[in-house]
Amino acid sequence: MIIVLKPNIAKKDEGIVVKEIKRLGYKPHIMRGVAHTVIGAIGDERTHRTLEVLSSWPQVESVIPVQKRHKLVSREAHKANSTVNARGVVIGGKKFQVMAGPCSVESEKQLMTTAHAVKKAGATILRGGAFKPRTSPYEFQGLGEKGLKLLAKARKETGLPIITELLSEQHVELVADYADILQIGTRNAQNFQLLIAVVKIGKPVLLKRGLSMKIEEWLLAGEYILANENPNLMFCERGVRTFETYTRNLLDLGAIPILKKESHCPVVIDPSQGAGRADLVTAMCKGSVAMGADALLIEVHPNPAEAWSDGAQQVTLEGFAKLMDELKPFIAAAGRE
Amino acid sequence: MIIVLKPNIAKKDEGIVVKEIKRLGYKPHIMRGVAHTVIGAIGDERTHRTLEVLSSWPQVESVIPVQKRHKLVSREAHKANSTVNARGVVIGGKKFQVMAGPCSVESEKQLMTTAHAVKKAGATILRGGAFKPRTSPYEFQGLGEKGLKLLAKARKETGLPIITELLSEQHVELVADYADILQIGTRNAQNFQLLIAVVKIGKPVLLKRGLSMKIEEWLLAGEYILANENPNLMFCERGVRTFETYTRNLLDLGAIPILKKESHCPVVIDPSQGAGRADLVTAMCKGSVAMGADALLIEVHPNPAEAWSDGAQQVTLEGFAKLMDELKPFIAAAGRE
Amino acid sequence: MIIVLKPNIAKKDEGIVVKEIKRLGYKPHIMRGVAHTVIGAIGDERTHRTLEVLSSWPQVESVIPVQKRHKLVSREAHKANSTVNARGVVIGGKKFQVMAGPCSVESEKQLMTTAHAVKKAGATILRGGAFKPRTSPYEFQGLGEKGLKLLAKARKETGLPIITELLSEQHVELVADYADILQIGTRNAQNFQLLIAVVKIGKPVLLKRGLSMKIEEWLLAGEYILANENPNLMFCERGVRTFETYTRNLLDLGAIPILKKESHCPVVIDPSQGAGRADLVTAMCKGSVAMGADALLIEVHPNPAEAWSDGAQQVTLEGFAKLMDELKPFIAAAGRE
Amino acid sequence: MIIVLKPNIAKKDEGIVVKEIKRLGYKPHIMRGVAHTVIGAIGDERTHRTLEVLSSWPQVESVIPVQKRHKLVSREAHKANSTVNARGVVIGGKKFQVMAGPCSVESEKQLMTTAHAVKKAGATILRGGAFKPRTSPYEFQGLGEKGLKLLAKARKETGLPIITELLSEQHVELVADYADILQIGTRNAQNFQLLIAVVKIGKPVLLKRGLSMKIEEWLLAGEYILANENPNLMFCERGVRTFETYTRNLLDLGAIPILKKESHCPVVIDPSQGAGRADLVTAMCKGSVAMGADALLIEVHPNPAEAWSDGAQQVTLEGFAKLMDELKPFIAAAGRE
Repeated sequence: MIIVLKPNIAKKDEGIVVKEIKRLGYKPHIMRGVAHTVIGAIGDERTHRTLEVLSSWPQVESVIPVQKRHKLVSREAHKANSTVNARGVVIGGKKFQVMAGPCSVESEKQLMTTAHAVKKAGATILRGGAFKPRTSPYEFQGLGEKGLKLLAKARKETGLPIITELLSEQHVELVADYADILQIGTRNAQNFQLLIAVVKIGKPVLLKRGLSMKIEEWLLAGEYILANENPNLMFCERGVRTFETYTRNLLDLGAIPILKKESHCPVVIDPSQGAGRADLVTAMCKGSVAMGADALLIEVHPNPAEAWSDGAQQVTLEGFAKLMDELKPFIAAAGRE
Repeated sequence: MIIVLKPNIAKKDEGIVVKEIKRLGYKPHIMRGVAHTVIGAIGDERTHRTLEVLSSWPQVESVIPVQKRHKLVSREAHKANSTVNARGVVIGGKKFQVMAGPCSVESEKQLMTTAHAVKKAGATILRGGAFKPRTSPYEFQGLGEKGLKLLAKARKETGLPIITELLSEQHVELVADYADILQIGTRNAQNFQLLIAVVKIGKPVLLKRGLSMKIEEWLLAGEYILANENPNLMFCERGVRTFETYTRNLLDLGAIPILKKESHCPVVIDPSQGAGRADLVTAMCKGSVAMGADALLIEVHPNPAEAWSDGAQQVTLEGFAKLMDELKPFIAAAGRE
Repeated sequence: MIIVLKPNIAKKDEGIVVKEIKRLGYKPHIMRGVAHTVIGAIGDERTHRTLEVLSSWPQVESVIPVQKRHKLVSREAHKANSTVNARGVVIGGKKFQVMAGPCSVESEKQLMTTAHAVKKAGATILRGGAFKPRTSPYEFQGLGEKGLKLLAKARKETGLPIITELLSEQHVELVADYADILQIGTRNAQNFQLLIAVVKIGKPVLLKRGLSMKIEEWLLAGEYILANENPNLMFCERGVRTFETYTRNLLDLGAIPILKKESHCPVVIDPSQGAGRADLVTAMCKGSVAMGADALLIEVHPNPAEAWSDGAQQVTLEGFAKLMDELKPFIAAAGRE
Repeated sequence: MIIVLKPNIAKKDEGIVVKEIKRLGYKPHIMRGVAHTVIGAIGDERTHRTLEVLSSWPQVESVIPVQKRHKLVSREAHKANSTVNARGVVIGGKKFQVMAGPCSVESEKQLMTTAHAVKKAGATILRGGAFKPRTSPYEFQGLGEKGLKLLAKARKETGLPIITELLSEQHVELVADYADILQIGTRNAQNFQLLIAVVKIGKPVLLKRGLSMKIEEWLLAGEYILANENPNLMFCERGVRTFETYTRNLLDLGAIPILKKESHCPVVIDPSQGAGRADLVTAMCKGSVAMGADALLIEVHPNPAEAWSDGAQQVTLEGFAKLMDELKPFIAAAGRE
């Protein structure tokens, strides 16, 4: 920690700060600058209580942490890229992966049609929501276990591994029985109890970014997964909330190179949530590939106008096939397969 | 729903939109304007599937919802202010209430000292965290049940009802055994499974605003409480996330008159989280009272520099007594007691 | 400046950083912590080139400035509150001031009616826009000089000093001929050439906060005024842009105690722009007074429904009289007149 | 305009709204829905006064504009992509263009070295700031006319057209004498007087997005250019302000497909300002190309550590050559040259 004192602080007042730093278990190191005296408080910020409280002291101008708070997710802890294996499909390796499927599982026909179509177009993982977090209690909340069973059936028919969202600590075992990848959604990105509960299963976890989550917080939420001994973590960017109203969210593609620099975990992009508009999805997929993402998570529906949730952002089966085709040169340009 | 068509759409293309509106169960009503044709889709937006999917159709410029999505929390549903009764302390009535206490329960001595002091200064409810949601897995996570027991002891000694945070669906019954008001924190504001689980207890619920939650979403999260038959709901503003870095959050005091206009539920302000700095808390309390809040939730600690969490934003016992004193003329000016 | 090195940096690489720090004119001071080596670069950050470029060096984790960049606007430079005198009306003193009038000057009748009414209700300064910055080129751009002449006439009739917005470097002398306070609007808050041009006149300047301006940037924009030798500066908060769509902006009342702490200049609040809705203005005025503002800037119109700009946020003459009445107890509670 | 009435409004109160709509020159069209009565107010929103004032009436729930406010910049006004010609270099055509050079012009040596290097690496336009808008009055403000002369010399030596920023209405003619493209910076994006002044010159204008400008506002700022009869407009995305602190801004690459859909004007991306960090520039350039940008604006400096402004975000000469090389496969994949 760095403690910056106000200008022209009396020696006596400086002494009080130094004493407090010592009392809290740090070793103070005083540095006299031109305008300010700065105190380095030497000690492990992760094990000691923080000194941030000093920021409200009258002698102190600011308290600045030095150490990054994330450890296990950091690139320093694991120099090479890590990979996640979901029933043989490897995310984070040379091969670029595409997860596709409907926002919500609605019926056997809807799911099977979609599953076969996305597989044919080149998707390697099937997505589909069985439990849906909905802003309003009056909206469709998902088919629940029935939806999970349909997903399992689609996997059996197509061979595609399944990713589906987990909403509740009560459902961890139920969902884990069916899913190959457990998705933690935006609204639960800092539901730490759910994070702790899900890691115990040992299956791959896809952690979406919270609505206006700083990258540091996201890394720390990921740290909850790795610190609880599940190494199969992927980060998924899906847009952050800003003032702009043209799109539902602002997809932060810059998060890709940042995450690649700070962490070793695979990075997945969800352009469907990010834009909230099907007509922007293709451009965003191209950008994701070019910027170094490892996989995409795309909402596809046989008839978006009839979708029970988020119809506006789901692409059609034909649209998805076309999108996959248009992506090819960019995947090649990015040196992926 | 209002569907705005693009300019100069061919009759045939217009017909396709009209047909789809009918197929989805709405009655179309066409209105030809100067620049656009606008279609009113008449039907209950809350029971029909939404028409928002049309926004990605080539003929359509935009789709605009007309109906508000919240019902039971709305002022229209309940013209008078509603009140919440926590062991005889009424929030939302003539009397202005102050909830105060430490961020985290740390020890018997810390809690009892604080409880007696805040009571003496005029607080009417005791706050204290036993389960703490922490950004990093390496930070202090709360004393758990031991903390709850200390809170119960403090209640016995001081007579003050207790408010404490609930983090996990697994803890609902445990926490409800001790607490008089269950607090749902910012990070769980859209953890709908937790909201549904907590209402079953029937105790008062204080619902904090999410980090960058729109007021409409907050009202809808509240709707989850009322729709599940618990009428004892309070909204608690605690700052939203913006670009500003001087304070931890930006306390949105304008939310008070908005909530009072849109809803009948009591409004509580948490200036400690809102500012993240003890030196700004008093000014923010004054503003809250003046703008029509029903209660405050203030973090108080006998020695903030030793606090195990969020020390920088907790006021001292003396600071709290002084704050309560300075608030009096504003409470009177606001016509409260 | 504080330079934090990456963990486990070789001595040789550390030496390169140290050498560069010296070359740029700072004196390095090395501090070895538990996880990181930190280098204090001692020297005046305001006169030396900054070291921020080091942040992109491979050896460096982060570069942290220590010194605040504002000088003359800071509380340290001027311990007492400064006041601004506009034709005998003192802003920043014991007396609370209210600036009121129409968003745009539209006609003699509209302006005179409003001027007399706001004076009668207790306003002490008349506001009115003659040059209007409009988002679209097709909107009413103000009456220009004709509007200024009407303002001068209203001043003559009522004795109220005038505040009006200045948009263009070309208009500085023209506007200064008529106005008692020159307002720099939100969109020009970082139009530094306009700031430099306006100070030469020597008249009081009201500097609105930019749309999403950090407080530090706002203080530095104010620094342009004081550094160019005009001491008559007021800061005016008018809401910042966030994700919320219920109101046009989010009025940041917390800026009041922050500005009062960091600076000596008077603080004015514009609740009309802040909310964008007349029905929220009264509550926001109460909050402003309670939190320590020195003055208000309120839009008032004899018939808001006919206003040529921003009708939704202007209060009626009756509404304004009622508002002034309701403010009285809060002004008293705040110890103001 | 669509006016949504509150539920259960008395016929008499409805009549008052209808009368006002007529009085303001619109033709009301009443539509009775299940929960609300909705009134379509038919008339040209761009020539009539807006009805938004009704939103503060007690009978009215909301007022919703239907018409887009931009005309000449819209895709509807000009179906084909428009192009901008700067001394023979065409932006917006088949060929992808790269504008590169130092943030500030500092010296002849610095500029000439950079100009030759970026030309050799493939840049087609030279950038360099002679007038710099700086947050603090104590920072380097640019070389002024001396900088412009150096730019002209660099153009003579390399043949590269020049883009440079214009800050002040007073400098329009001076800057226009030297520059081939006039850049309007972020802080002046809504300095409408400057926009009006610059168009008269008739040279190409590059309009950067304001710090937290909505796309609609940006299009309308562009409308100021086209409405004043200068068709040579380019939009330049350079990041918007959010809560994230890891990067200086959040580069909104999603703005590319949105602008391409809404407007016919060329789209340029500035990844240097967008990221504020040289180490993220390459990834952002790749994303820009993939998503359909027409050109890039990149800061390059022979020795970023010695730059007089924004050193952290400028890439080295070698870094730029490598970047240009890495871009090639993406330019090909995007079907550009």
